[in-house]
Amino acid sequence: MEKNNILQIFSKNMKRLRQNARITQEELSFRSGLHKNYISDAERGKRNISLKAIEKLARGLEINLTEFFMENN
Amino acid sequence: MEKNNILQIFSKNMKRLRQNARITQEELSFRSGLHKNYISDAERGKRNISLKAIEKLARGLEINLTEFFMENN
Repeated sequence: MEKNNILQIFSKNMKRLRQNARITQEELSFRSGLHKNYISDAERGKRNISLKAIEKLARGLEINLTEFFMENN
Repeated sequence: MEKNNILQIFSKNMKRLRQNARITQEELSFRSGLHKNYISDAERGKRNISLKAIEKLARGLEINLTEFFMENN
């Protein structure tokens, strides 16, 4: 069976981590400097985002990079 | 002090993981379907690569995604 693809893994973790931090997409947008629509798309697995954007999101959420890529949540 | 940036973390891990797998950049290029120059650039932190490319590299190296993002190696 095909494993979950990276967009699914990343987007699911991103949404969960933001909700755990109890912040809105708008607040994450403010903290990361990324557009609110970009945040929304990323959480729906609609963006093939790059390393630099991933770093901005990790800083905005105050998490370690690895947390975005955990496969068993 | 500023933490290492994500390009440094990723590129250092990528090179180490490829060397651990005992394969050349050319072999990883073949396995991942990414151009050899792209592999070389990524290992030197010169590419702001995207999620889909990261997935191809992880499959080529037969590793978990999180291994690219470990910060203490």
